[in-house]
Amino acid sequence: MKRGITKRDEDFSRWYTDVIAGARLADYSPVKGCMVIRPSGYALWEKMQFNLDRMFKETGHENAYFPLLIPESFLEKEAEHVEGFAPECAVVTHGGGKELEEPLIIRPTSETIIWSMYKKWIMSYRDLPLLINQWCNVLRWEMRTRLFLRTTEFLWQEGHTAHATEAEAEEETLRMLDIYRTFAQDYAAIPVIAGKKSEREKFAGAVHTYTIEALMQDGKALQAGTSHNLGQNFAKAFDVTFQDQRGEQQFVYATSWGMSTRMIGALIMTHGDDQGLVLPPRLAPLAVVFIPIFKGKEGHGEIIDYIEQIAASLDKDYNYRVDAREEYTPGWKFNEWERAGVPIRIEVGPRDLQRDEVVVVRRDTGEKFSLPKNGLKEKVSGLLEEIQNSLYERALRFREEHTVRVDDYQTFKEIVAERGGFLFAYWCGDPECEDQVKQETMASIRCIPLRAEGEDGACVRCGKSSRDRVYFAKAY
Amino acid sequence: MKRGITKRDEDFSRWYTDVIAGARLADYSPVKGCMVIRPSGYALWEKMQFNLDRMFKETGHENAYFPLLIPESFLEKEAEHVEGFAPECAVVTHGGGKELEEPLIIRPTSETIIWSMYKKWIMSYRDLPLLINQWCNVLRWEMRTRLFLRTTEFLWQEGHTAHATEAEAEEETLRMLDIYRTFAQDYAAIPVIAGKKSEREKFAGAVHTYTIEALMQDGKALQAGTSHNLGQNFAKAFDVTFQDQRGEQQFVYATSWGMSTRMIGALIMTHGDDQGLVLPPRLAPLAVVFIPIFKGKEGHGEIIDYIEQIAASLDKDYNYRVDAREEYTPGWKFNEWERAGVPIRIEVGPRDLQRDEVVVVRRDTGEKFSLPKNGLKEKVSGLLEEIQNSLYERALRFREEHTVRVDDYQTFKEIVAERGGFLFAYWCGDPECEDQVKQETMASIRCIPLRAEGEDGACVRCGKSSRDRVYFAKAY
Repeated sequence: MKRGITKRDEDFSRWYTDVIAGARLADYSPVKGCMVIRPSGYALWEKMQFNLDRMFKETGHENAYFPLLIPESFLEKEAEHVEGFAPECAVVTHGGGKELEEPLIIRPTSETIIWSMYKKWIMSYRDLPLLINQWCNVLRWEMRTRLFLRTTEFLWQEGHTAHATEAEAEEETLRMLDIYRTFAQDYAAIPVIAGKKSEREKFAGAVHTYTIEALMQDGKALQAGTSHNLGQNFAKAFDVTFQDQRGEQQFVYATSWGMSTRMIGALIMTHGDDQGLVLPPRLAPLAVVFIPIFKGKEGHGEIIDYIEQIAASLDKDYNYRVDAREEYTPGWKFNEWERAGVPIRIEVGPRDLQRDEVVVVRRDTGEKFSLPKNGLKEKVSGLLEEIQNSLYERALRFREEHTVRVDDYQTFKEIVAERGGFLFAYWCGDPECEDQVKQETMASIRCIPLRAEGEDGACVRCGKSSRDRVYFAKAY
Repeated sequence: MKRGITKRDEDFSRWYTDVIAGARLADYSPVKGCMVIRPSGYALWEKMQFNLDRMFKETGHENAYFPLLIPESFLEKEAEHVEGFAPECAVVTHGGGKELEEPLIIRPTSETIIWSMYKKWIMSYRDLPLLINQWCNVLRWEMRTRLFLRTTEFLWQEGHTAHATEAEAEEETLRMLDIYRTFAQDYAAIPVIAGKKSEREKFAGAVHTYTIEALMQDGKALQAGTSHNLGQNFAKAFDVTFQDQRGEQQFVYATSWGMSTRMIGALIMTHGDDQGLVLPPRLAPLAVVFIPIFKGKEGHGEIIDYIEQIAASLDKDYNYRVDAREEYTPGWKFNEWERAGVPIRIEVGPRDLQRDEVVVVRRDTGEKFSLPKNGLKEKVSGLLEEIQNSLYERALRFREEHTVRVDDYQTFKEIVAERGGFLFAYWCGDPECEDQVKQETMASIRCIPLRAEGEDGACVRCGKSSRDRVYFAKAY
């Protein structure tokens, strides 16, 4: 843990892994492509889970658990789905010492197994809507992996809902997209662009996919959550019908939506700096760390008492920790908690005690100042809120500075190659054009904005008349 | 859901599956041996997780996440471990469309993958103790499965700790056993006997295993949680050493401990009755359900307002629900919530409203009585506490009535065959004797009490001099 952190503009990719190592978020495992989420990383995931789960429940969703293993034949029931996922599957061929009659795949996503159950549970319109979410692990065999961003196994939540009408399914798809947007912005302090995926980029088996897209500090976009309107595709594949109010059999409409541990990668690359991780207070497992500054061998107990009294008086919405370890110097601790991204450090030495003060250091700006002990509760809560907002504003400013309207292809190519960011450009809607841009520049269509601007223009690649500007970017 | 519930004394095993279906806790999946945990069952698991997790964190443990897949060669590093688990493994042989160089097994338990990581993380005595827990799914290939009790895939938590000394590891093993005992008794209202497993029954790879054993209403015992002292077995298998304070390299001491969704099965078979599930209030996802009794078409809104006002005034430690669905009759709802095990039902009709009263029905006893609206908060909280205690007392009484001291083998065999329960009998300590009892009666040694009574006796099977009485029972 002693080694330093590579600077972002030196080597962003090394910086990223250094930040993870420095904050002890995760580690490589002996199994190719799989990672270990260490306690600091998992505590962050628990904060994400807690807040997302609350929002899911507030909108009427319940959690359940479906099997890890899926019969291979299930995947094949939806033509696009199997085409998209089969190449990434891990296959179980033996169990209990015997070869299986039918190989089982480890879920890459659970539409098929869940819809095979929905067939048993859904009979009538009274059984709808069915609003279920699952927190679990999934597996997608990946060739090139990166901690949190792309790993063979990852943790996520996947919502799977069933509805009586197309309109209700669409409403649900957009409701969950909005929950993801709210979570990203209000909790992770990550500004995102919400939009629709192109046909090429949509989920395998969906009618259409919505996404939230964030911009990382290296100018690459990251898909942070997706919400799919599955239409009747899975209901038809698994023959799930319901009797409507007029007594007629209808196929059910479906949605699915997911957010994963990838969000931790987005958090790191949005807020981190050359000193390490920077966490938004609302997701920080630890909001404030107190560090006693001992002078000589006397008075340690007094300082600890003073600190613990303060810590106990602070707002219970956040977590605090007193780092009273005697075997480490204050400087060593400053460094450790800085790398760990703790939003506020409070130092207390004998002089602060005399003056009824504390010294406060903001992780995001590095600012250091004294505050009186009196009224500290409100000051600290206010400061945490200010840090939360300021991280969001900083990230938003960065995104705005790295979002360019561009109308000629030469400039488009130069910007993608030189500084990255979002390119807001006209696209004719032709998948061929989309493929060519991707091949030629490595930029893909991240999303089509939910509301078009209503002004026609010329496709940045082919010049044909186009209705909407869309967001292009190189992406993780 | 309309069909009734088989009576316990008619067919206990059918009663069990009827209760699960009636409360919609779980369902069979299309994958042999795997189950689906439905929202009502998962909500129960979430209550268990919440309380256990809090107790783990209060004792200094942190959560982390390790890979699902384990290289086959890892399992082989600990001789007893591989012997115990290899026959139950599911094996992944293909990934990403190719055959793997080394097959991967799906974790049946995570000692091996975790200790391969601990080798990287533990260098010095300063890194100890390492106190980590993981919530996850595991897979053990089972031939004969039963919902919650024995399924190929199940959910659990597994704690894995590392210590500098044998004494600390033993202390941790007993600490976690005590947490399980407390959880079982104070939350699940299940009285348990805590003790040590015999050599034959201990965990594959442990020095010794502690267990908590509960008694089900059919007279069979159920192992509800185990805590293992692993000694230096896994440290040696994975070469995990640390530098002690004198600068010498020492092997690390280990513990592991787990509790699973099996606990839901224990809950059902301890408290359930011929009407269905009965839940202890502290684990009930829903503690009180309010049911409006409408007379005619008028005044529905008034009754609902009255109920919602009351519901909002109750103790926030519990969850409440107002079942205002107009499409179902009160009788239908009574039945549904009875089967679901909700501890208290509160009925409110026009007459109750006039009298400023409510009608309260206890799920555990069926008692029905009126209570004034004034002071209802304290009354309901008190009643929930009373139900919690009374379920525990009832289960304890049942266990006491079904625990017999027995000193001759003929009586032993008769009791096992006729009424089951715990047989508290002398055992010489010889594994051969243990095997013979199991073959001849199907009763196994559930545990050796933590504190012996200190009186010698004659082994119930062979008559040899024996130091301790142990608990025998047929078991799940």
